[in-house]
Amino acid sequence: MFLLTPVLVAVICILMVWIFKNADGSTERRKGEPGAEAHPWVDEDLKDSTDVHQEEAEADEWQESEEEVEHIPFSHSRYPEKEMVKRSQEFYELLNKRRSVRFISNEQVPMEVIDNVIKAAGTAPSGAHTEPWTFVVVKDPDVKHKIREIIEEEEEINYLKRMGPRWVTDLKKFRTNWIKEYLDTAPVLILIFKQVHGFSANGKKKIHYYNEISVSISCGILLAALQMTKMVTKQVAFVSFLIL
Amino acid sequence: MFLLTPVLVAVICILMVWIFKNADGSTERRKGEPGAEAHPWVDEDLKDSTDVHQEEAEADEWQESEEEVEHIPFSHSRYPEKEMVKRSQEFYELLNKRRSVRFISNEQVPMEVIDNVIKAAGTAPSGAHTEPWTFVVVKDPDVKHKIREIIEEEEEINYLKRMGPRWVTDLKKFRTNWIKEYLDTAPVLILIFKQVHGFSANGKKKIHYYNEISVSISCGILLAALQMTKMVTKQVAFVSFLIL
Repeated sequence: MFLLTPVLVAVICILMVWIFKNADGSTERRKGEPGAEAHPWVDEDLKDSTDVHQEEAEADEWQESEEEVEHIPFSHSRYPEKEMVKRSQEFYELLNKRRSVRFISNEQVPMEVIDNVIKAAGTAPSGAHTEPWTFVVVKDPDVKHKIREIIEEEEEINYLKRMGPRWVTDLKKFRTNWIKEYLDTAPVLILIFKQVHGFSANGKKKIHYYNEISVSISCGILLAALQMTKMVTKQVAFVSFLIL
Repeated sequence: MFLLTPVLVAVICILMVWIFKNADGSTERRKGEPGAEAHPWVDEDLKDSTDVHQEEAEADEWQESEEEVEHIPFSHSRYPEKEMVKRSQEFYELLNKRRSVRFISNEQVPMEVIDNVIKAAGTAPSGAHTEPWTFVVVKDPDVKHKIREIIEEEEEINYLKRMGPRWVTDLKKFRTNWIKEYLDTAPVLILIFKQVHGFSANGKKKIHYYNEISVSISCGILLAALQMTKMVTKQVAFVSFLIL
């Protein structure tokens, strides 16, 4: 039996934001910069959508980030082996019950839970500990509806033009399309933004290395945290905004 | 006090593998394909390192993926609000104890736990449900040492040449470098490979959409699962291999 109204719901909407764009408007990656070895596959990965070399031109910024970080003392207690096995087994079984649900209830969820799962997501590791993520919680029906309109508009273009026939065919079996009613229905939307760069105390730009990978790891922890509470979730395909 | 030997240890080593490379050897992304709207930021994101349009040339592959997938019935039970809050709070507190530890014990860990945490990671959502990840568990000291050598060699080039002085300066405060003794010490390495594409039953290539984001979400769940067992972990910076 397919239940149409899972009891508790949060929707995870992953929005990627470019808060910085190359001054010359180019979106191409740079290749063959002086000092780079001829290992294109590694370079590609290291760049992680971040144009490191361009930012390096601002040479006067190097010094300010040399301050030492506080290393927090680490103490550790340990479970007996049996307990470890049991806990890992239970965690797997719980997570294995997570489904991508497309029919979603409008019942309210305790905001304390939303706070806690986002705090859990914020414990994720990140490149050079830059924590390049912003979580935005939306409950206002009008704002939710506007978000739905933007996402549906972009998704329609995705399906009809950007993704191409092969991708659309691959998705057919899931019976998905660009209509996302649940963005209105769900009581809470969590929007996740990646920060391509941040700012240091003196207002200078600080690069966020591996920002997309870091944010995605954080999303994984968020999903796990939501599933720990048995909250029903639906991830929305990645949509990009551009803020210049 | 800084404990030098946390009791239980697994190392997560994230290796990204290109199992497919453009036939013409080009690593550039394609732009301005017919039918693509002039929204470069969205296109960039949609591509996710996957060259969708190139693969589309093989038009005869479209049909084979049209079979319906089995939709698994979904049933849902719910915690009382108090219990949800309590569970989300406890999960946050446990995950908040995770640290990136660089001194690692050589004590063995139960392999059943490793199996369970990888199974948990495999429950992650992925683009078009392609599950584009491969987890490889390494315990053999010789293999671990070879992996360490490869990683250190690549990381040394990263620090000295590829990353540039700004990035290296940003990392200074963490006192990290390219020497990774713990890759020998840790009893278990988990290597995580992203599959840029897979193969369908008839041996044809199947694109894995959003593979890097999907794998990273899966890594987040893996880290959460390991922390559930209080196993001490260290993630290793992303290293790319190229298999042609």
